[in-house]
Amino acid sequence: MRGKLITFEGVEGAGKSTHAKLLADWLKNEAGLEVISAREPGGTHTGEIIRGILQYDAAKEPLSDNSEALLFCASRAQLCASVISPALERGAWVVLDRFTDSTLAYQGYGRGFDLATLRAINDFATGGLKPDLTVLIDVSLEEGFRRVAQRNTGKDRIESASMDFHRRLYFGYRQIEAFEPSRFFRVDGTMSMDDVSNCIVKEICARFGVGVQ
Amino acid sequence: MRGKLITFEGVEGAGKSTHAKLLADWLKNEAGLEVISAREPGGTHTGEIIRGILQYDAAKEPLSDNSEALLFCASRAQLCASVISPALERGAWVVLDRFTDSTLAYQGYGRGFDLATLRAINDFATGGLKPDLTVLIDVSLEEGFRRVAQRNTGKDRIESASMDFHRRLYFGYRQIEAFEPSRFFRVDGTMSMDDVSNCIVKEICARFGVGVQ
Repeated sequence: MRGKLITFEGVEGAGKSTHAKLLADWLKNEAGLEVISAREPGGTHTGEIIRGILQYDAAKEPLSDNSEALLFCASRAQLCASVISPALERGAWVVLDRFTDSTLAYQGYGRGFDLATLRAINDFATGGLKPDLTVLIDVSLEEGFRRVAQRNTGKDRIESASMDFHRRLYFGYRQIEAFEPSRFFRVDGTMSMDDVSNCIVKEICARFGVGVQ
Repeated sequence: MRGKLITFEGVEGAGKSTHAKLLADWLKNEAGLEVISAREPGGTHTGEIIRGILQYDAAKEPLSDNSEALLFCASRAQLCASVISPALERGAWVVLDRFTDSTLAYQGYGRGFDLATLRAINDFATGGLKPDLTVLIDVSLEEGFRRVAQRNTGKDRIESASMDFHRRLYFGYRQIEAFEPSRFFRVDGTMSMDDVSNCIVKEICARFGVGVQ
């Protein structure tokens, strides 16, 4: 049986990486599934080089918004072809920290590129692959910013973008969800970590009937 | 006055790099113009990293065709934004060894991707910028292969693709030219280097009125 593709989305500091990892652990340990986890951009040799360009090389040369969008999609294309599709086909589940919706939110709503063009580029990158479920972790802009500041690791290029950019991003995610509500599960990311995690697991069990004896 | 964008296209071994350089030298030295030359993929810090992925990193991980296409376009987007557009705006001429038609020929006709999608991705990468003239250097497939073999530098990933791939490429270029004949100048690349170069210079003078006292 084909595996499921679960993606995590949300603004900076929402807790995507934390909850992607918690869900992957639960799927492995409690539901006994083979699980592949990856982050975007990255997750492949090529993708990690691209991640480096996007996060750090831009210091050497300002990266154009168009090139940024295409690099995210190039990383995604490689991840789909070499990791995600083979895993789903052999029945493994795939849990991703960001996927196609990030391009729509960041490059579409954030940077202002045409959404239909970005959807076409996403489809080209993924070969039309869609998540079975997208978990949108919802924290207010202010709370997301506070959390990023607490990490204390220095802001990268996107985290340093303007508050207006992040506001467009926040409302962008809500628009994307409104466009395909059945694909999304939105969870209140200001609850305790355990409560958020339990909500997500409960939703997964209800949707896909895993972990139920 | 805005500068002109001249691109060189053709199959492997056609002589694009040689004639791009000869034309750039002529425009500088004989027509007294400011000329910017670049090669694709590359021509920027980001583009040269991408060139490395496309040419050599694929040995570490097979690169998916979709990722390859998006990487070429990401390199192009960065080149347009940081080099080509500023140069044209200040009146410089830009001479490119490969541009958007290479994506249509290699990824469209060669790899079989939908041409309309590739045109949309090209337009996204370039912001709609079109060459003022594209020089298509025409050598037979067999002659192109013979020249590549003589270079003796070891074939890269694309040069190692099948003869069928290169055949599709060759006819792809002719189709692209047929679609927009007025943008193209096709020159017989089996003539002597001097004859090819003279034909190109003559065409440039006739089209743009440069170098004429």
